[in-house]
Amino acid sequence: MRDTWRNNFSEWYNEIIEKAEILDVRYPVKGLYVWFPYGFSIRSHVLHVIRRLLNEKNHQEALFPLLIPEDEFAKEAKHIRGFEDEVYWVTHGGLQELNVKLALRPTSETAIYPMFAVWIRSHRDMPLKIYQVVNTFRYETKHTRPLLRLREITTFKEAHTAHSSWEDAEAQVAEAIEIYKKFFDTLGVPYTVSRRPEWDKFPGAEYTMAFDTIFPDGRALQIATVHNLGQNFSKTFEITFENLEGEQEHAYQTCYGISDRVIAALLVTHGDDSGLCLMPEVAPIQVVIVPIWFKGKQEEINREVKKLQEDLSPLRVSIDDRELRPGSKFYDWEIKGVPLRLELGPRDLADNVVTAVRRDTGEKLRLKRDDVKKEVEGILEKITQDLRARAWRVFEEKIKEAATVEEASAILRKEGGIVRIKWCGSEDCATDIEETTGVSILGILSEDVEGKCAQCGRPTKTLIQLGRTY
Amino acid sequence: MRDTWRNNFSEWYNEIIEKAEILDVRYPVKGLYVWFPYGFSIRSHVLHVIRRLLNEKNHQEALFPLLIPEDEFAKEAKHIRGFEDEVYWVTHGGLQELNVKLALRPTSETAIYPMFAVWIRSHRDMPLKIYQVVNTFRYETKHTRPLLRLREITTFKEAHTAHSSWEDAEAQVAEAIEIYKKFFDTLGVPYTVSRRPEWDKFPGAEYTMAFDTIFPDGRALQIATVHNLGQNFSKTFEITFENLEGEQEHAYQTCYGISDRVIAALLVTHGDDSGLCLMPEVAPIQVVIVPIWFKGKQEEINREVKKLQEDLSPLRVSIDDRELRPGSKFYDWEIKGVPLRLELGPRDLADNVVTAVRRDTGEKLRLKRDDVKKEVEGILEKITQDLRARAWRVFEEKIKEAATVEEASAILRKEGGIVRIKWCGSEDCATDIEETTGVSILGILSEDVEGKCAQCGRPTKTLIQLGRTY
Repeated sequence: MRDTWRNNFSEWYNEIIEKAEILDVRYPVKGLYVWFPYGFSIRSHVLHVIRRLLNEKNHQEALFPLLIPEDEFAKEAKHIRGFEDEVYWVTHGGLQELNVKLALRPTSETAIYPMFAVWIRSHRDMPLKIYQVVNTFRYETKHTRPLLRLREITTFKEAHTAHSSWEDAEAQVAEAIEIYKKFFDTLGVPYTVSRRPEWDKFPGAEYTMAFDTIFPDGRALQIATVHNLGQNFSKTFEITFENLEGEQEHAYQTCYGISDRVIAALLVTHGDDSGLCLMPEVAPIQVVIVPIWFKGKQEEINREVKKLQEDLSPLRVSIDDRELRPGSKFYDWEIKGVPLRLELGPRDLADNVVTAVRRDTGEKLRLKRDDVKKEVEGILEKITQDLRARAWRVFEEKIKEAATVEEASAILRKEGGIVRIKWCGSEDCATDIEETTGVSILGILSEDVEGKCAQCGRPTKTLIQLGRTY
Repeated sequence: MRDTWRNNFSEWYNEIIEKAEILDVRYPVKGLYVWFPYGFSIRSHVLHVIRRLLNEKNHQEALFPLLIPEDEFAKEAKHIRGFEDEVYWVTHGGLQELNVKLALRPTSETAIYPMFAVWIRSHRDMPLKIYQVVNTFRYETKHTRPLLRLREITTFKEAHTAHSSWEDAEAQVAEAIEIYKKFFDTLGVPYTVSRRPEWDKFPGAEYTMAFDTIFPDGRALQIATVHNLGQNFSKTFEITFENLEGEQEHAYQTCYGISDRVIAALLVTHGDDSGLCLMPEVAPIQVVIVPIWFKGKQEEINREVKKLQEDLSPLRVSIDDRELRPGSKFYDWEIKGVPLRLELGPRDLADNVVTAVRRDTGEKLRLKRDDVKKEVEGILEKITQDLRARAWRVFEEKIKEAATVEEASAILRKEGGIVRIKWCGSEDCATDIEETTGVSILGILSEDVEGKCAQCGRPTKTLIQLGRTY
């Protein structure tokens, strides 16, 4: 790696995406990328985690069409206004012009809710909790970046739920937040959850809760959102049910989603100047074994390496038997972020040990060969805990409180990250704060503090977060 | 089920797709369907099988963009001519017209091969064996049908390989055919493999091998294809490598694919007048337990049912504790094709047995409670073998040989299915045969028989297959 994680982050990111074989950026359309097999495997493991968490909470996976007819898409006025600048339109089939234009889904409310209207008849049909993992499309005019700003979002996990009361929908928002917390804790990605300001909520939602993490360049990255849709879409799409009183009522809905950005967050959070460091649970290769060959001992070592791999099953273990110097191999696997490297040479054999090197700390350990599986499992667990703790430590250092807007500005200019200040709730003060600091209000963290608006000095109970966003 | 599998197949099919909750056909665009969770789960298990088989043979999963720029798409002349009538075109992003139109992939050669040109430098970079599972699009003007003829093919598994010699590509074609045979054997779907005639090969291929099965209405359904692309695409997309002699040479390529049709074939092959019967390996629910409640015994039975489920882990076992009569439950699970039903009532408890009913035969068995897991596993294995054997028996009854075109016509008119005749190889005879019989030449089965052309009487070694296709 030529670039450093901390001081040259943007270049580090571009370099790691290529060198660790996550995505190929050479596809001939801006904002579209190719998943290399290694990157794709990370993605599969990450998806496995979120599917498990959703299934545990009785979500059902389904699959809806990509193409949405213009009339359905345009039904919800705020929703269409929120997306009209970035929707791709299919206008022709073969050489023929279509009668009705078809949108490539930028998100699937307008594809899914007409079906909800058919499926839901009674309060007994709810809660209905559906999700899908699909590709979605946004015609981004801004600078595109792999995993961060895409024209084809290849990994859009969106959940959609319907309930028979506002309270049930509120409980679902809370459940979704808990699921995402567990998800990011599994990935070791730190987060802060806040309620997006009114002007930044999802088009058509009552309110939006968002997860943000912080990148090494000090910018905040939105990595998940949870929306309470109230009855807005159910009124538009006529999703009604017979309630306990026998009357027709519009359903209460929520939706929540994550995208390729969670994989960016995973890669960046645990990266360092030598490359990636993957959380063991989602690493395609959890352990790589490098045989240290020595004249006359090659066959014996190969045999022992093979046996070692078998003993470590069902861990995901790879043997690197390429005809390269061990140092080159170490370098490759460090870039790719394999959490643990094992080395086996004549001396290890003689001592009945295995040499282990942790990717996260570089620490070298000698493991008893007879106990190797238990020891390796223990180290992987330790790596998991340490990566998570280190990530949270780094994250929390980047969150500051400020009493005044000027103080907030100074911190943001100097260090970036997230700054918390108090705010009276008026749009005027919000505009002034954003203008002075030059960054966005990420959201409302709490409405239960005591203090004064950092802008106007009026008393308030609202604590908000500021940060430069991606 | 109102309709019968054998005599009213088309209606049976529409009914089962809906009643077994495979797909919802009420999505408001022709040819686009919604996967219900139950259908989606079958799909996931089927994909798991093909992924396993491909990975075992060192294929790597990747993911390429959906959108293909017009200039890349149009590079291979035969290819574009083969697809130009059915490609969807994206012409607008937001309110702006795009400079370059974007095709929704109908298949991904033109998305993948520009990347192969970048990835492949030397013979050491090959064999390159990549696959992806994606949605693809065809603007079908014919009558669309769930899983069979779609505008969004939601489950397109396409593999693409590159090799340093024609022989290696030939070996890859053979490997692909073996993989698909194992795949269909796992699903218990019978097949015949033949070489498509010249005029029916994949646009841009040297030749196409195809798998066909036969539906109860006597029509042949293409369920997989394997193409040897020779150097056609590598010349167009400039995929070259340095060969052993140090010279630049164009790569030799193959590609092969399956689609949603394999799921249709799975559902149809083992179906009957009561609904689906799923192969245990891909059944979302392998065993359903229906408690037979009896006054005063309800709690005890529920406890025992729960214990039974636990004892059967890790089989996929569901308990149906809905407040319905057992008969209604039996009916539902028969439609959905759960391979084995267990019943547990007071009498079973008293006798220390479990009542088991096979979905495929209706056979009722009493299993010793203490041995239940081993017994259930044994029955599921027996069901797998019996379903496969029965399917092949039915299939082989539908394949006939004929000496003359008239004989072939009579069989096809009366029974449908596939008829084998000898053919001299001339296009004139082919045209005459197709005109007389009113069906298509599926392909060449063998070039090693002795006999005379059924049309012109000239001596030939070529045996072909005829059948009405989907």
